[in-house]
Amino acid sequence: MADEVILLDFWPSMFGMRTRIALEEKNIKFDYREQDLFNKSSILLEMNPVHKKIPVLIHNGKPVCESLIQIEYIDETWPTKNPLLPSDPYQRAQARFWGDFIDKKVYSATRLIWGAKGEEQEEGKKEFIELLKTLESELGDKIYFGGETFGYVDIALIGFYSWFEAYEKLGNFSIEPECPKLSAWAKRCAQRESVAKFLPASDKVTKFVPELRKKIGLE
Amino acid sequence: MADEVILLDFWPSMFGMRTRIALEEKNIKFDYREQDLFNKSSILLEMNPVHKKIPVLIHNGKPVCESLIQIEYIDETWPTKNPLLPSDPYQRAQARFWGDFIDKKVYSATRLIWGAKGEEQEEGKKEFIELLKTLESELGDKIYFGGETFGYVDIALIGFYSWFEAYEKLGNFSIEPECPKLSAWAKRCAQRESVAKFLPASDKVTKFVPELRKKIGLE
Repeated sequence: MADEVILLDFWPSMFGMRTRIALEEKNIKFDYREQDLFNKSSILLEMNPVHKKIPVLIHNGKPVCESLIQIEYIDETWPTKNPLLPSDPYQRAQARFWGDFIDKKVYSATRLIWGAKGEEQEEGKKEFIELLKTLESELGDKIYFGGETFGYVDIALIGFYSWFEAYEKLGNFSIEPECPKLSAWAKRCAQRESVAKFLPASDKVTKFVPELRKKIGLE
Repeated sequence: MADEVILLDFWPSMFGMRTRIALEEKNIKFDYREQDLFNKSSILLEMNPVHKKIPVLIHNGKPVCESLIQIEYIDETWPTKNPLLPSDPYQRAQARFWGDFIDKKVYSATRLIWGAKGEEQEEGKKEFIELLKTLESELGDKIYFGGETFGYVDIALIGFYSWFEAYEKLGNFSIEPECPKLSAWAKRCAQRESVAKFLPASDKVTKFVPELRKKIGLE
């Protein structure tokens, strides 16, 4: 029996982008189901009753929640093509550390850039730049975060790239002069087929952000 | 060459307890180094420059940070004795989901019980009980979270048990009548050798909490 793979997702979500890219890296076809986060569907509530959040990966009827966990699940379920995590336990721990860092630190800083105003927004911007510099220093002169191969940390971070223009516009700053190596890395990733296929265009995200700010009562 | 394993830790940390228990489950001897979190050591700052937090597991000179990542690292490095994660990818994803839930939700609720006052503390208490009920429902009638075998989710959660008495005293409530199955699970885990050896006594934690509240300016 062929695998039935469904993804409950929302197009500007950098978390959803991870799962789309990971599935594409494994050449897994999936049924993409766009969700309205302001009017949650019964399938979303049923499949992720704890967090009620996208993305939800549904594989043969069974849900997997949380995007980093989905990447590992995808890697373990379809291990042959394009391994996403390194095989060495120490390298795996390092990859997980940076994935966790992106979720714990980077997301909350960007949340302040698009979801706050004034001083709070300014603080988010400053922190975001510091965090990107930490990531730039971890990347160093490597092609990808894991070295020669596109993988877990690249997938965890690249979705934010589609929001860079929106952050820059809202915060009135430029990322590339601050983090030239990270910017080059992002452009390199963006040329990869899986990323090109599933990362939305920057201008589409930039147009969407004021709508989002209106919806949450900021503008 | 024998493995050199060092753990930078702080005795009341439920995160540190995870790593101690996981190492003991694998029968790995380690050099425990108690840290002063109000006066951080140079080894802590050097080994975890990003978060500057305990626990840090140092294996043959190389640091692994973040306790859930440490459990996976320990399981992958010493896979033979007492596997901590299930082998099935879906079960692994479920275990990771609950570990992540404990870190994202349970810890922040307990943080309000011991690290806040008045209404905020009350809210933390209510949320904590709801979260424990969600965990109790996930546990159901199983012996451990993974079924018959003590593992990842049990290790992720059991450290909080040593704080139960402190939470109850601060919040003036009782956990056992709210969550009888979870309480029975905790008692079952506490009898296990690895847990008995590394979980501090409840009354020691209960005595420590007012000191902690004083240190952070709450009392």
